[in-house]
Amino acid sequence: MWIVPEREIADLMTREAAFNAVEKVFAAMASNDAYNFPVVREAIGHVDALYGFKGGFDRAGLTLGLKAGGYWPNNLATHSIINHQSTVFLFDPDTGKVKAIVGGNLLTALRTAAASSVSIKHLAREDAKVIGMIGAGHQATFQLRAALEQRSFEKVIGWNFHPEMLPNLEKVAEEAGLPFEAVELDGMQNADVIISITSSHDAILMADQVSPGTHIACMGTDTEGKQEVDPALLRRSAVFTDEVAQSISIGEAQHAVGQGLIKESDVNQIGAVINGAHGGRTGADQITLFDGTGVGLQDLAVAASVVDLAIEKGIAIEVDF
Amino acid sequence: MWIVPEREIADLMTREAAFNAVEKVFAAMASNDAYNFPVVREAIGHVDALYGFKGGFDRAGLTLGLKAGGYWPNNLATHSIINHQSTVFLFDPDTGKVKAIVGGNLLTALRTAAASSVSIKHLAREDAKVIGMIGAGHQATFQLRAALEQRSFEKVIGWNFHPEMLPNLEKVAEEAGLPFEAVELDGMQNADVIISITSSHDAILMADQVSPGTHIACMGTDTEGKQEVDPALLRRSAVFTDEVAQSISIGEAQHAVGQGLIKESDVNQIGAVINGAHGGRTGADQITLFDGTGVGLQDLAVAASVVDLAIEKGIAIEVDF
Repeated sequence: MWIVPEREIADLMTREAAFNAVEKVFAAMASNDAYNFPVVREAIGHVDALYGFKGGFDRAGLTLGLKAGGYWPNNLATHSIINHQSTVFLFDPDTGKVKAIVGGNLLTALRTAAASSVSIKHLAREDAKVIGMIGAGHQATFQLRAALEQRSFEKVIGWNFHPEMLPNLEKVAEEAGLPFEAVELDGMQNADVIISITSSHDAILMADQVSPGTHIACMGTDTEGKQEVDPALLRRSAVFTDEVAQSISIGEAQHAVGQGLIKESDVNQIGAVINGAHGGRTGADQITLFDGTGVGLQDLAVAASVVDLAIEKGIAIEVDF
Repeated sequence: MWIVPEREIADLMTREAAFNAVEKVFAAMASNDAYNFPVVREAIGHVDALYGFKGGFDRAGLTLGLKAGGYWPNNLATHSIINHQSTVFLFDPDTGKVKAIVGGNLLTALRTAAASSVSIKHLAREDAKVIGMIGAGHQATFQLRAALEQRSFEKVIGWNFHPEMLPNLEKVAEEAGLPFEAVELDGMQNADVIISITSSHDAILMADQVSPGTHIACMGTDTEGKQEVDPALLRRSAVFTDEVAQSISIGEAQHAVGQGLIKESDVNQIGAVINGAHGGRTGADQITLFDGTGVGLQDLAVAASVVDLAIEKGIAIEVDF
């Protein structure tokens, strides 16, 4: 059994490795080589914690296991550790024996960033120049850093409910040598790519605040009741997602489908675009929207990747289990 | 993070510790201090394996986590390891950090044996003398060994679909200094306590093969379609179980409830008897029946117990995770 502690992940895992792992498993999902198990998510009635399991099996990559963990809202204040806590457990699909235990905190951030990044690679216009960020928290910096690698962006614009957090984005833009501008939501009309990454429960971005030809990645909605964009925007867009069942139940598409603005069959798997089974964007004026809900297979894919790297570099701890 | 490998469990864990852990968590379930999460169970489409997760939280014992694993039917033939493979992962309910990883194979056998043993302690007649076993596989020996500690039994009788396996039971009886007799199913009329532990999909034991005053623990039925006893026997009996929802859906009571012979409200939690909230057996002639379906909390309880023992004895492996 191999163990890769949380503290080792930052030096081991690259954005490129996370991107490749997530792109590959999205493709495997679309070709029915990989599937996610039902998600377990429980309010355990102790310190307001949410806890659960996201499992799956990738028959192509032979990756089996789960991410376990959740959200402990008092962690930072009480224990000085981050509120999101998770661990990935990988199993040998040939025998059922546990194979690896991997810290899942940074990996979750990287796999979420990789997802919007994969959607930009496959759906955004090649000539995209301006990237707009809605949300400026810790995770937003991961999304932006990964996104900037996908196109020759020339400018970053950003909006956040709490404007005092916008320097988080500005810092990432500066690192990449790009100018940053804080904008009102109407200013998003100047963006070619938009990433929303908030914990909102109401639409922030309206349909008329998005210009033709834009690609939007909605990355914040992963629960019933959460919402980042105007449902009318989904009717205007070609809609893609990681997993259709999640998209229409707990993802951004829950609202547009619930209101009858789009149908389940209007939501396409991003993996089908990666595979070439779906043509993706049909023209320079089409709006494409990626509903990133987050699936267990993403976690397993990046964890399997980091275990390989850790073994290769002699960093993985081996325990005779 | 503490690790207790499978190979250490046999020397660490006692039947007494397993009994106490299971009795305590059954009581906690009945007082709503502990609950099981929805079970995930998947035929993964690879080497005919069944894989899944059984999780739960015991607020009283502060035990949070899951057992992950399943059934790999070709393990023994292909890899010379047992077909049932499982691992228990315990989490710190205060922070969400992983706390311990414990080999789950022997623990599963011990917690299943402890469950029927707990039911005997709380439901069998004090003067029970003859114990009858239906099923003589590997797990049957665990059930019998644990059961013999609960009453002053004077004789073991047994039946198995494959009679050539009965020496498994005879050996356990001999170890305990008790005579063993192979019987036909009608011979079970002489038993004061009966444990069935088979993988049957049809009723083996008929209602008229059970005498008044008997306690029966049905331990083999844990899936839709499995069945060990005549549904009419449940109508004749006071029915108890570990978890009512499992009992009526995947446990032995699925058939009697499905046929309208008993109602959900006729199925009682064994924990309520342990707590004193239910009086248990009402007389020397009543038949009591325990439907042991197996819950994740049992696994967590015995795993938490063995981690404590392993730390105390300096056997647990500590990894800075």
